[in-house]
Amino acid sequence: MTAPDAQSPGPRAPASGGSVVISVDAMGGDRGPAAVVAGIAESAEKNSEIRFIVHGDGDLLKRLIDKRRGLAERCDIRHASGVVTMDDKPSQIVRKGEGTSMWSAIESVKQGEATVAVSCGNTGALMALSMIRLRKLPGVNRPAIACLWPSRNPSGFNIMLDVGADIRADAPDLLQYAMMGASYARNGLGVPDPRVGLLNVGTEEHKGRAELKEAHELIGQAAATGGFAYVGFVEGGDLPSARADVIVTDGFTGNIALKTGEGTAKLVGDFLREAFANSFMSKFAALLAMTSLKRLQKRIDPRRVNGGVFLGLNGTVVKSHGSADATGISAAIKLAFQLAKSGFQDRLAARVAQSVAVAQAEGGESSEKGAAT
Amino acid sequence: MTAPDAQSPGPRAPASGGSVVISVDAMGGDRGPAAVVAGIAESAEKNSEIRFIVHGDGDLLKRLIDKRRGLAERCDIRHASGVVTMDDKPSQIVRKGEGTSMWSAIESVKQGEATVAVSCGNTGALMALSMIRLRKLPGVNRPAIACLWPSRNPSGFNIMLDVGADIRADAPDLLQYAMMGASYARNGLGVPDPRVGLLNVGTEEHKGRAELKEAHELIGQAAATGGFAYVGFVEGGDLPSARADVIVTDGFTGNIALKTGEGTAKLVGDFLREAFANSFMSKFAALLAMTSLKRLQKRIDPRRVNGGVFLGLNGTVVKSHGSADATGISAAIKLAFQLAKSGFQDRLAARVAQSVAVAQAEGGESSEKGAAT
Repeated sequence: MTAPDAQSPGPRAPASGGSVVISVDAMGGDRGPAAVVAGIAESAEKNSEIRFIVHGDGDLLKRLIDKRRGLAERCDIRHASGVVTMDDKPSQIVRKGEGTSMWSAIESVKQGEATVAVSCGNTGALMALSMIRLRKLPGVNRPAIACLWPSRNPSGFNIMLDVGADIRADAPDLLQYAMMGASYARNGLGVPDPRVGLLNVGTEEHKGRAELKEAHELIGQAAATGGFAYVGFVEGGDLPSARADVIVTDGFTGNIALKTGEGTAKLVGDFLREAFANSFMSKFAALLAMTSLKRLQKRIDPRRVNGGVFLGLNGTVVKSHGSADATGISAAIKLAFQLAKSGFQDRLAARVAQSVAVAQAEGGESSEKGAAT
Repeated sequence: MTAPDAQSPGPRAPASGGSVVISVDAMGGDRGPAAVVAGIAESAEKNSEIRFIVHGDGDLLKRLIDKRRGLAERCDIRHASGVVTMDDKPSQIVRKGEGTSMWSAIESVKQGEATVAVSCGNTGALMALSMIRLRKLPGVNRPAIACLWPSRNPSGFNIMLDVGADIRADAPDLLQYAMMGASYARNGLGVPDPRVGLLNVGTEEHKGRAELKEAHELIGQAAATGGFAYVGFVEGGDLPSARADVIVTDGFTGNIALKTGEGTAKLVGDFLREAFANSFMSKFAALLAMTSLKRLQKRIDPRRVNGGVFLGLNGTVVKSHGSADATGISAAIKLAFQLAKSGFQDRLAARVAQSVAVAQAEGGESSEKGAAT
């Protein structure tokens, strides 16, 4: 973390146009603020409904934004001189993070100026700051990070959560993840009746840890009133399949699965490139197949599925990959916009309240059938 | 499970040639005994050192083996009329499994007729039978299943364990997995100084569950005497990397990671095929790139990495994929041969004894430097 200087208000321009406000932390990503502003510009061009509050070094941001035609009117710059680095410990940022661009970006959501915050900074610090500034939704024990996963589903994606907010989850937590994930699928991916699966080492009911068997019961009971279908246990091989739209697991397992999947896709991609670079004939073939290969690349491009969403807080935060480029950041902003536009936060809060009631009833049947939120 | 009939000895032929005897369960795979015998024939042709004891329906096996020139002299057929199916519960097989080909295949190892057993039947039943017939090595708390994982290492593979023998593992178990995995890397993959990593959600020392922090200490202390290098915590993305040769985790996480990796590789492969089938031009390109694509396919072909090895028992058992074809079964037999030939079982037992001493010393330094076994 670099030390914040005195809280100078920085250059401000009244932002105009657009009905949805997204708060963007411009610092802390691996590629620096230029990549973030390029991503903002890409989103602004594609979608006239978005306005931005951009947090970071005011002078630098002004220069970067002024370079892009028409962007200044869409952006409100908030100067923050401190930067959370990838090496900063979350506990340290919680104590001393005021004055950083990350803190400032979250504050805009807390104050109601923006609906969703986007950052490509340090995940642990972002979660810690989000927790202390936005606070957990009433009834939420462990917030979760949800990611999108390329799959054979019509939408092209599955949602998996938790992928690393907390390394533990007991049965009521897993039930909340199911409710929150289903709400995200409806509002973020537009899936009206999401199918929820619980990640386990086999699909048979007798398999797995005790908390999974308990969660299996709880989620099954909550499905009807929760507005989702429960498909039961799913396995690692089902993550990219069309068996479920939402896959629920604890943050330890989810993090390992996410990184394993990314690493494997990258390995296969690298092998593919090596295979095509092997001979003159194969290079020529690659040239001919360019369109097809590009289509393939687009389907598995991690930049297109960029954006982990923090769920279970009083406010929505989208975590972009640290290494995201303009395309990746624009994808994260698009996701933030969709969630903001759909009124996701209020719908999610309603679902969480419902999951608390289900868990408290401990299997007692509820006759109330909730509207799909 | 089909009921075994009276224990008829079945047709026997004295097996000749070859110095290493592998016991093969010919039944219970998805493709039936014909695929298994085809795999045996492939291995027999490639490697004159192997002899086989083949377990299953005696008449059927005799017909299948007699069809292949020269194979009958290399095979000793053991009739077993019972078959363990994929739906059989392990507990049921433990009680009533005597007379099945799986039981008989393990018995050949127990009796010392064969060095390693190979089966493509029901994993849970195979582990349960192996446990009760072969028994755990003295000092082993939880046996493990180790799998091979395509990676950027010179050998082309990493070893990961446990991938599903037990859903739990505490710190001393994880230490044993490190010792057993290193021994497997030396004897199965020919890596003289294996690098061992411990799977976690981050590489920083403060991350992860309590048992992982404890295992981190134990494995670090055991590295020097255990004849391996400890690289510390590794993440999911490191599974296909060249950071480690052996990756240690509990059976729950390992199973999820293994299936996620397989599922992701399959998804990318399917997308690739679809991309090339898309237009005339891309089909033509695929034709031109055939050699390169075949090379790629070979690198990520799951049949080539076929074979989970059960570690921690008084005898080595190789579990082949249920859906393995001749190529896959031949790969599993090749692995079994390498392990048998290297005297793996005795070396492993020596390592386990050492790990027990290390765990008992609870961090006490041992000055004894073991030979690389």
